[in-house]
Amino acid sequence: MRVRNVIIVTKPHQVEVAKAAADLAEWFKGRGVTATLDRDRAAGADLCVVVGGDGTLLSAARIMGEHQVPILAINYGGLGFLTEVTRGEMYDVLDRVLAGDSVTDSRMMIDVAVYRGDAEVERWHALNDAVIHKGTLARIIELEARVDDLYVTRFRSDGLIVSTPTGSTAYNVSAGGPVVYPTMLALVMTPICPHTLTNLPLILPADSRVEVVVRSAPDEVYVTVDGQVGIKLASEDRVTVQKSKRSLQLIVPAGRNFFDVLRGKLKWG
Amino acid sequence: MRVRNVIIVTKPHQVEVAKAAADLAEWFKGRGVTATLDRDRAAGADLCVVVGGDGTLLSAARIMGEHQVPILAINYGGLGFLTEVTRGEMYDVLDRVLAGDSVTDSRMMIDVAVYRGDAEVERWHALNDAVIHKGTLARIIELEARVDDLYVTRFRSDGLIVSTPTGSTAYNVSAGGPVVYPTMLALVMTPICPHTLTNLPLILPADSRVEVVVRSAPDEVYVTVDGQVGIKLASEDRVTVQKSKRSLQLIVPAGRNFFDVLRGKLKWG
Amino acid sequence: MRVRNVIIVTKPHQVEVAKAAADLAEWFKGRGVTATLDRDRAAGADLCVVVGGDGTLLSAARIMGEHQVPILAINYGGLGFLTEVTRGEMYDVLDRVLAGDSVTDSRMMIDVAVYRGDAEVERWHALNDAVIHKGTLARIIELEARVDDLYVTRFRSDGLIVSTPTGSTAYNVSAGGPVVYPTMLALVMTPICPHTLTNLPLILPADSRVEVVVRSAPDEVYVTVDGQVGIKLASEDRVTVQKSKRSLQLIVPAGRNFFDVLRGKLKWG
Amino acid sequence: MRVRNVIIVTKPHQVEVAKAAADLAEWFKGRGVTATLDRDRAAGADLCVVVGGDGTLLSAARIMGEHQVPILAINYGGLGFLTEVTRGEMYDVLDRVLAGDSVTDSRMMIDVAVYRGDAEVERWHALNDAVIHKGTLARIIELEARVDDLYVTRFRSDGLIVSTPTGSTAYNVSAGGPVVYPTMLALVMTPICPHTLTNLPLILPADSRVEVVVRSAPDEVYVTVDGQVGIKLASEDRVTVQKSKRSLQLIVPAGRNFFDVLRGKLKWG
Repeated sequence: MRVRNVIIVTKPHQVEVAKAAADLAEWFKGRGVTATLDRDRAAGADLCVVVGGDGTLLSAARIMGEHQVPILAINYGGLGFLTEVTRGEMYDVLDRVLAGDSVTDSRMMIDVAVYRGDAEVERWHALNDAVIHKGTLARIIELEARVDDLYVTRFRSDGLIVSTPTGSTAYNVSAGGPVVYPTMLALVMTPICPHTLTNLPLILPADSRVEVVVRSAPDEVYVTVDGQVGIKLASEDRVTVQKSKRSLQLIVPAGRNFFDVLRGKLKWG
Repeated sequence: MRVRNVIIVTKPHQVEVAKAAADLAEWFKGRGVTATLDRDRAAGADLCVVVGGDGTLLSAARIMGEHQVPILAINYGGLGFLTEVTRGEMYDVLDRVLAGDSVTDSRMMIDVAVYRGDAEVERWHALNDAVIHKGTLARIIELEARVDDLYVTRFRSDGLIVSTPTGSTAYNVSAGGPVVYPTMLALVMTPICPHTLTNLPLILPADSRVEVVVRSAPDEVYVTVDGQVGIKLASEDRVTVQKSKRSLQLIVPAGRNFFDVLRGKLKWG
Repeated sequence: MRVRNVIIVTKPHQVEVAKAAADLAEWFKGRGVTATLDRDRAAGADLCVVVGGDGTLLSAARIMGEHQVPILAINYGGLGFLTEVTRGEMYDVLDRVLAGDSVTDSRMMIDVAVYRGDAEVERWHALNDAVIHKGTLARIIELEARVDDLYVTRFRSDGLIVSTPTGSTAYNVSAGGPVVYPTMLALVMTPICPHTLTNLPLILPADSRVEVVVRSAPDEVYVTVDGQVGIKLASEDRVTVQKSKRSLQLIVPAGRNFFDVLRGKLKWG
Repeated sequence: MRVRNVIIVTKPHQVEVAKAAADLAEWFKGRGVTATLDRDRAAGADLCVVVGGDGTLLSAARIMGEHQVPILAINYGGLGFLTEVTRGEMYDVLDRVLAGDSVTDSRMMIDVAVYRGDAEVERWHALNDAVIHKGTLARIIELEARVDDLYVTRFRSDGLIVSTPTGSTAYNVSAGGPVVYPTMLALVMTPICPHTLTNLPLILPADSRVEVVVRSAPDEVYVTVDGQVGIKLASEDRVTVQKSKRSLQLIVPAGRNFFDVLRGKLKWG
């Protein structure tokens, strides 16, 4: 990878982050690399540097995934599973990236679509998860799940999470789901507080087509993607989740592996 | 217990239930007992018959609890942990009740109050639980819990359930909480999908004063009582839960015990 | 598949099962097919019929896996996730198999080996799981897990389950692990009652080499494979688990899918 | 409480602990207080100082509980839920104890007995728990539980934990049970890896008589008390667990409460 054009994506509304991004742009300039903060120029970039937390990376991934631009994520947020490069090691890692000495993990992403009758009404590209969940006033919602047109069950619960391996360590684990090794290809379907206690988390093949049909009253059910975007659903709306053709290319610091991160975040040992 | 005045509380909007209630009133009349469907006359009643499901009983308990009127609950709903008397055995059980041959369980209830600044803004009497939970648009909420003015922790979660033993088999078990023997005196505090995975369910003494302080932004947090009534909370609102002086007197069919009900509902064996 | 030589494997010590096997042999004979109950003739068989429960199938799979003989399993045991063909439908399904009209699922199997110093001291081929667990007198054991030579953690627990997707619905779910779609390729690593509560179940790529090193005193730790065979481990023994080159070819009744089985076994809905 | 005779109980085989105990005895002598390390003189003591970890306290509690001698536990082990007084604050706390300025928590203990036919074959006094569990060679065991002679269910599992509130934070939480406030009166019954996934932890009134009947083959089932003592059980043996008349009087450092300890041990926040 020869880096010529860099796009820097930052966590908004933070003076410290804006300062770091400006320093970074200057640093690239000194090395003959063009750097911009304009997200609309993602198409031409050959490296994206995210300065922020996991949330900033999730929004960058949805944009950059379109163009398969590799992402280096610098942690300026709280604890992050994704943004593993610390501020202190930022320039060392970047030096190695510019020298062509970096390793990239391919992370599976998902396409999430909403169908109402015959029409597709919404579509997103996501790195972590699609969550179909109850709204404020609902007590319990009913969601019918199908996998490759096979009936799974009708969940009565607070909602249903369909997660990628990368997203497995996010909302999924809070709902009782397992950790999935992040470079695997798989889908995780985990109900949130199910009424039927034996509705266990399910690991599905990555090429499955998961379909969730809303069987509750209108105004009760919502879909939220990566915890960031979403819409209200109507009765009989169908949400589909499938492996995307595009994946996230995440630059990972040398000498650090997923189990190191896991031990730190989950406070093992 | 000498029964002279009966109040019948029914699940609304159901023809079959209305018919059953009318038959029941007639049956009482033939035995010289006054029966009314007027909830405003709860004060003078010495027996309350609930015809419906667990939801109908919860709303009746909130009214009758004021007057300590014993309740007999006939199951005309779905599966119920509380409404254990079936339609088929209804008149046999009532005969025994009128003959003074019945057993009553005392079920602990809770007083739930909301404070804003110095003012108490709302108060309920509940049989099952108080749930402080996120609204539709929130991702995760922060709730600080105190027990008898001792700091417990600041939960980052979808919400927090404070349940009675009776309520332990409701929302609490879906969130991972334990079953508490229903005539015990205790409070159960169970976080919903906590971010910190070691935030376990806590069993507290019945005389504890649980206080939950909203540490999230406005428009994000709600309190719901018995899954039926509630309000939106503001930042820094405090919800308190304490054992009520009044309890529910629940008439239980002879020869059936809690473990029989548990095995049936949880499909053991 | 043209069937000429059948091997029948039965649950031992059961009169009813022995009778069914004899009838079955007769039935095959009438159709010009050789049938034997002699397990030593597995090498030449082109179909194996298992008459028993999941346990019988597990032992047959360990033998037949060597020769990649397709297995049809008839349920003469209790509830089974694997032995889905009932007695009632046995001959219908067999007719279809002989007519070449049957569907076969490929189920991943694992090679489990025990190393002591430089020597391999034991090796098994398994369908469900390898469980490294404490013996009677131990309170808690210490096991160090490595994946592809990367350190995962040192588990303090009652033990550790390394399961296939097929085995995920066995011991793994009792220990809190998820259900994995059975024809997937993956390994599941689930600690049993871990002291560190955040030691979550882990889903790993099928080509991972899992190594578990005994860090406890001698006489405290055992390995058990498919719940059927195993040995006592010494301190510093290493148990490795890897995807086997051989898989189980399981004949599945037409028109039944995994979710149907799951709903039945887990009593959903 | 006027302290004249102190018994010091130490973790065995540790030079550092033996040294600390000798220093402690000298310290008491300088204040005119008799101190002994002889456990047989427990009857005459009016204070017991435990120097070690939770394990040492458990064994001391079983002895001292007989005589209701208050216990002060100094942590010389690893992380402890019970031994909350650190070495650094030891002499400050002891000064306050001798000055009569100390607070004592009463912790419920249990009587555990084993019956075979008409005979009681064993009996213990315990602070944490009685665990009826499988031996090395068993796969799954069957235990029938009764509470006050009412049938609960027949558990198929790795075992069953009957715990006090104090013991709830030990093995019980690893098996999925809740934390019970330690000065409460209650029993917790938690199955270990149950085959039936809806076999939830149960909180029972403290005056319940729990009876567990072995329904498995001989040589398969054991009972272990406080993780320290126990026996092998025969088929049809009955283990009973009841609240003991005697409780543990545990001296607690001023200004520290259970939630502080919980946050530390469970790494909250």
